[in-house]
Amino acid sequence: MKGEKFSGKGMNVIKEDYPDLYESIVNLNETVFTGKSLDYKTQKLIAIGIASSSQDSRSIKKQMKSGIEEFDLTKDEIMDVLRVVLLTSGMPSFVKSVQILNELF
Amino acid sequence: MKGEKFSGKGMNVIKEDYPDLYESIVNLNETVFTGKSLDYKTQKLIAIGIASSSQDSRSIKKQMKSGIEEFDLTKDEIMDVLRVVLLTSGMPSFVKSVQILNELF
Amino acid sequence: MKGEKFSGKGMNVIKEDYPDLYESIVNLNETVFTGKSLDYKTQKLIAIGIASSSQDSRSIKKQMKSGIEEFDLTKDEIMDVLRVVLLTSGMPSFVKSVQILNELF
Amino acid sequence: MKGEKFSGKGMNVIKEDYPDLYESIVNLNETVFTGKSLDYKTQKLIAIGIASSSQDSRSIKKQMKSGIEEFDLTKDEIMDVLRVVLLTSGMPSFVKSVQILNELF
Amino acid sequence: MKGEKFSGKGMNVIKEDYPDLYESIVNLNETVFTGKSLDYKTQKLIAIGIASSSQDSRSIKKQMKSGIEEFDLTKDEIMDVLRVVLLTSGMPSFVKSVQILNELF
Amino acid sequence: MKGEKFSGKGMNVIKEDYPDLYESIVNLNETVFTGKSLDYKTQKLIAIGIASSSQDSRSIKKQMKSGIEEFDLTKDEIMDVLRVVLLTSGMPSFVKSVQILNELF
Repeated sequence: MKGEKFSGKGMNVIKEDYPDLYESIVNLNETVFTGKSLDYKTQKLIAIGIASSSQDSRSIKKQMKSGIEEFDLTKDEIMDVLRVVLLTSGMPSFVKSVQILNELF
Repeated sequence: MKGEKFSGKGMNVIKEDYPDLYESIVNLNETVFTGKSLDYKTQKLIAIGIASSSQDSRSIKKQMKSGIEEFDLTKDEIMDVLRVVLLTSGMPSFVKSVQILNELF
Repeated sequence: MKGEKFSGKGMNVIKEDYPDLYESIVNLNETVFTGKSLDYKTQKLIAIGIASSSQDSRSIKKQMKSGIEEFDLTKDEIMDVLRVVLLTSGMPSFVKSVQILNELF
Repeated sequence: MKGEKFSGKGMNVIKEDYPDLYESIVNLNETVFTGKSLDYKTQKLIAIGIASSSQDSRSIKKQMKSGIEEFDLTKDEIMDVLRVVLLTSGMPSFVKSVQILNELF
Repeated sequence: MKGEKFSGKGMNVIKEDYPDLYESIVNLNETVFTGKSLDYKTQKLIAIGIASSSQDSRSIKKQMKSGIEEFDLTKDEIMDVLRVVLLTSGMPSFVKSVQILNELF
Repeated sequence: MKGEKFSGKGMNVIKEDYPDLYESIVNLNETVFTGKSLDYKTQKLIAIGIASSSQDSRSIKKQMKSGIEEFDLTKDEIMDVLRVVLLTSGMPSFVKSVQILNELF
């Protein structure tokens, strides 16, 4: 999402109608994904893990897709993230995320 | 946690009184942290991110501590994980995790 | 929802088949939304904030719709609720709620 | 939190060691609590509701305290927020928040 | 909790200062725990499972204690609940609940 | 799910491509649902309660369906589970689960 223009449906409305809010979000996003020590790819893997734990389909799909597009993440790499999700968040989070992953490969 | 003997208070009781359950957990843990593509350190960073998003103090502290002991994770590295937590999970998760991080460095 | 007859699909079945449960819910609902100090509109805005933080699409939509129908809530008013959601619950909750809001205006 | 200097323990460290992150947070916070239609007090009541639903003691206490200090919120007003929490999030969230509220009055 | 007088700290204040709310809660509680088909003990086991999944220490302890007092629940019975928690909600929820269980036996 | 072959879409892929992970999950599942004191039916009712509290539609439906198929659970029995969900997790979790239950009977 680094340098992202947030062009999704929801964010376009924010940009036009609430430019102050849009600027703050772009600024925060840029700062978040400009870490001091970890590279952006590692941060993206972490974002996929957090999204998968939260069980929000929209967000799981969005994070996986942007990870695949930006870093050519492989299915095995994302599955290694989901292994951690299985242990920390349980079967329902894991199975839901595996199904979304399968639709992307 | 890879190869871990789960020697914490809770797990010792499990090991003695519910050995079948203990074996299953050790087996799952080993499988989870033996990824095909990501190394164990990256998986640990993901586990810290998920714990921090869940707001469970015990688990945040446990994951950070084991990451520091096993991989010499620096404060900056963990803070780069928490940057992602701020964006994905909001200020309360972030601030709570920062406070725990500060106690460890 | 004050004085509501809970006429949604799920609640109609409750009313017919589990009248004791239905009565308890109607009674609780009435008590909850008859605050001592805050008016009902403010309580409705709080309910929208809580629903949006929970990422449950059905409930987000239901709270926003009833807020618009009962109080003529404007898009700007609901967006001001979602600003708080962004800070306290993170981007995924915020973006999902913004998308639902956009469908209603 | 509007115009807040974020002087809590965790945030002081952020300010000194991660000034870029601190600036982004201050900026976001200011934008969030400068709504177009709702006043700041209403947004604060919403923040208390969201914190109380999340069951994070630290955050519940922090939001209630700052609401009392900044707006002289009464016990009845906060209890009217918690009524909504009871209906939307269940007894455990409600009882925990009531206990924290009782310690503040 | 059936027929309970809710004598905990938080609830005493509710009873005195917000009797309407107290009555609604007592009424709801009574209705909830008077199931048509399942006995009260089974419902209590379900309540322990839900509390343990939510990671709220206060609520986990409260549910386990009342289950032990009202039904002489054994450690093995509660551990069988926690087995389900492990599968559905992950290790952090499970370990936290096991620790609380160990303090009660 | 005891003795289950996990034949759902997601799990089939796991079985073929990640057999180590599949074995660990089957093993854990078997251990979890072989309690020392509670019977499998009671554990299934607990699993339905936990799923319903988490608001994940896929998982709520899956747990209810397998409970109906394996144990001929009646609508009243599942509703008695959902009564507990109403008290512990609030109206949105309850209403969503009631709607899913209604689709199954």
